[in-house]
Amino acid sequence: MDRPRVAAFLAASLDGFIAEADGGLGFLKPFEKEEHGYAAFYASVDTLLLGRKTYETVLGFEEWPFRDKRVRVLSRSPRKPRFGERFVSGEPPSVLATLAAEGARHVYADGGEVVTGFLAAGCLDALTLSIVPVVLGTGIRLFAHSPGTHRLSLVSTRTLESGVVQLTYALMPGRG
Amino acid sequence: MDRPRVAAFLAASLDGFIAEADGGLGFLKPFEKEEHGYAAFYASVDTLLLGRKTYETVLGFEEWPFRDKRVRVLSRSPRKPRFGERFVSGEPPSVLATLAAEGARHVYADGGEVVTGFLAAGCLDALTLSIVPVVLGTGIRLFAHSPGTHRLSLVSTRTLESGVVQLTYALMPGRG
Repeated sequence: MDRPRVAAFLAASLDGFIAEADGGLGFLKPFEKEEHGYAAFYASVDTLLLGRKTYETVLGFEEWPFRDKRVRVLSRSPRKPRFGERFVSGEPPSVLATLAAEGARHVYADGGEVVTGFLAAGCLDALTLSIVPVVLGTGIRLFAHSPGTHRLSLVSTRTLESGVVQLTYALMPGRG
Repeated sequence: MDRPRVAAFLAASLDGFIAEADGGLGFLKPFEKEEHGYAAFYASVDTLLLGRKTYETVLGFEEWPFRDKRVRVLSRSPRKPRFGERFVSGEPPSVLATLAAEGARHVYADGGEVVTGFLAAGCLDALTLSIVPVVLGTGIRLFAHSPGTHRLSLVSTRTLESGVVQLTYALMPGRG
């Protein structure tokens, strides 16, 4: 069975931070109103794979935003599911084998650590990065640790009115 | 006297590295043949302001590439000039006052530390960043230390055949 396709959809400052030092996303606020293609991307996936930190952030939202999707949380400490989510652990290939057995075909990997780990393991297929016109100086980096060197293939670029530039890449086979 | 306009023209990996961990630029090699607008940018400046490390790198080149420009090197340890370059030191505003008195109108700030220091001091006016389609994992970061938070205004984008995306920003007045 082919493994599911895995894609990430992230926003970062020009200097590569996906969140402020305290995890806050205030720097993205001025750019939230714009249509970034998130809805179309979200509609294209059947499964969300969340990192533990992202999961905990989402639990704090007023509403669970993923009712219509299979949600899996990468965590070594399973807990009681609240919205049908399940907990998975292991290396990216075995996680993807589990997801494939459940019927996943297109996975949205969300959270800096998940994206970094899947990229490092050669298990990320596509990356959409919206670069907001801000230098943040400090914060949480796009890649939580070094994912190694990888060649990318630019698939598309979009420039939004606000100055956000959205770059979509496919990962090229093999390592950089 | 108005201070000179200061611009930077840099290339970085998607994860924000301007050089490999050892200072090497091998990751840029596959993209060097393309026309990136460097010649036009270079023609538009009258003065180069180099960081000490960039200066030492350039001294190792077969030929001094800046014969037709005023070259100033930011260094606290002046040495014997080899190609008419002069050494300057001090905070960005005083360096710019010195350059203005020498007739500089448009300065090309080159080197991660110079660009970071001038941005931090509110003395950078424009930044062109060519993002190569590579995740490098480790290396020397675009900003050598935190330059603080800054709002940028996207001036233009260019997408090259190789997948390099060139973004040009103007710095917005005031701090982020």
